[in-house]
Amino acid sequence: MPSAVPQPAIVLVRPQMGENIGGAARAMWNFGLDRMRVVEPRDGWPNQKAVAMASGAGRLLDEAGHYGSVAEALDDCTFVFATTARGRGLTKPVYSPEKAMELAREKIAAGEKVAVMFGPERAGLENEDVARANAIITVPVNPEFFSLNLAQCVLLTAYEWRRQSVEIEHERVEMAKTDWASAIEVEKLSQHYEERLDEAGFFFPEAKAEGMKVNLRNLWSRMPLTRADVQMFHGMLRQMVRWKDRQD
Amino acid sequence: MPSAVPQPAIVLVRPQMGENIGGAARAMWNFGLDRMRVVEPRDGWPNQKAVAMASGAGRLLDEAGHYGSVAEALDDCTFVFATTARGRGLTKPVYSPEKAMELAREKIAAGEKVAVMFGPERAGLENEDVARANAIITVPVNPEFFSLNLAQCVLLTAYEWRRQSVEIEHERVEMAKTDWASAIEVEKLSQHYEERLDEAGFFFPEAKAEGMKVNLRNLWSRMPLTRADVQMFHGMLRQMVRWKDRQD
Repeated sequence: MPSAVPQPAIVLVRPQMGENIGGAARAMWNFGLDRMRVVEPRDGWPNQKAVAMASGAGRLLDEAGHYGSVAEALDDCTFVFATTARGRGLTKPVYSPEKAMELAREKIAAGEKVAVMFGPERAGLENEDVARANAIITVPVNPEFFSLNLAQCVLLTAYEWRRQSVEIEHERVEMAKTDWASAIEVEKLSQHYEERLDEAGFFFPEAKAEGMKVNLRNLWSRMPLTRADVQMFHGMLRQMVRWKDRQD
Repeated sequence: MPSAVPQPAIVLVRPQMGENIGGAARAMWNFGLDRMRVVEPRDGWPNQKAVAMASGAGRLLDEAGHYGSVAEALDDCTFVFATTARGRGLTKPVYSPEKAMELAREKIAAGEKVAVMFGPERAGLENEDVARANAIITVPVNPEFFSLNLAQCVLLTAYEWRRQSVEIEHERVEMAKTDWASAIEVEKLSQHYEERLDEAGFFFPEAKAEGMKVNLRNLWSRMPLTRADVQMFHGMLRQMVRWKDRQD
């Protein structure tokens, strides 16, 4: 069963290699897309090489629509994007994947049916196919070099769909089984080091001692220390003192 | 010669398949990255399969640094990201590719040397490698499915680097050799249709005629018409009239 989340259909037009169809299915499902449509695949349908490559995303192939023409595949769609690597001399809006998937999200939220077409591996979509689309998606690659394969183009589109449609957590701190050190714990650590280093004659010459201490206190306070870190620092210092004591 | 643009180094740690090293090079260069470092590649260095796969981005392999350990590869870096698919139980910030490349851009602009580490195909980075990094990058995939390969992980990172570091054109209209129609041209087109359709008895019944005309005028004005479109519409209508005339 396809997922219940409204989403764009991914339409592979005349794909050549089964491996690439399977790779496209995996690329889609990595980012939560599971509506594939396949138009005139070169080697027929179903395709065993596609199934072998899709491992884990094989369901998308089982559920994929198989069509004899681009027109049939797009029958129920109200807005269609065509992905192309370069201009086609057609008057049509051209969007980045980011902007396109933002539009797709808006249109789908308003009840539209959106599709994104991808052409055959070697030559891409024919102008005749592109003319059926409402807009073009072009990936903003290095102008000196374009070598994205079919699965990679699908991947970037699916990635942008997920970026636009799911709340992405951009930043978090992964925690070990420890907590952050509290200010008093950092303060005690700072004192511990200051005292021992003072005994050790670290703050020398006298004239610079106060500045050195301020720098050291600041060092501790700007470090994101966990309790475990604090214990580790205490332990290291204690060990150095023990070592010193053994030399006496 | 590497490009002059300051950028993060891409560090492949113990990559297994030459094909994937070549694929990573292509993924990088698609988005303008060309500083690769390779640590302990399984099959030695240089790697002919990598070269064969890199077609067009082979220069990146020729210029890549080859290192015997992760520590050596990161020697000159002031900030290192490690890419991982899942948590490692290490206390460390975790960023989305988007946020990470935004940070990378800021750090590089401030003169820092930034690297992004990618682990071997099968198992990813060891915890020991991750511990050397200042932060983690995790791609926000579908929680039910993760199957990104090495080149795809590099691709998404490079894509986000380009998104963050280059002004992307999100929207433009690709123009054929025509210009947009001016308001007066659209107005004349609207009049042409209204007159002929009036003659043809299209605006019927009388009571609805004015409403139908308003709708039709609105239709023309909300269409993004080029001069060529306008000529095409004029021509179609004229032809219908000629056809009608032939029947008289």
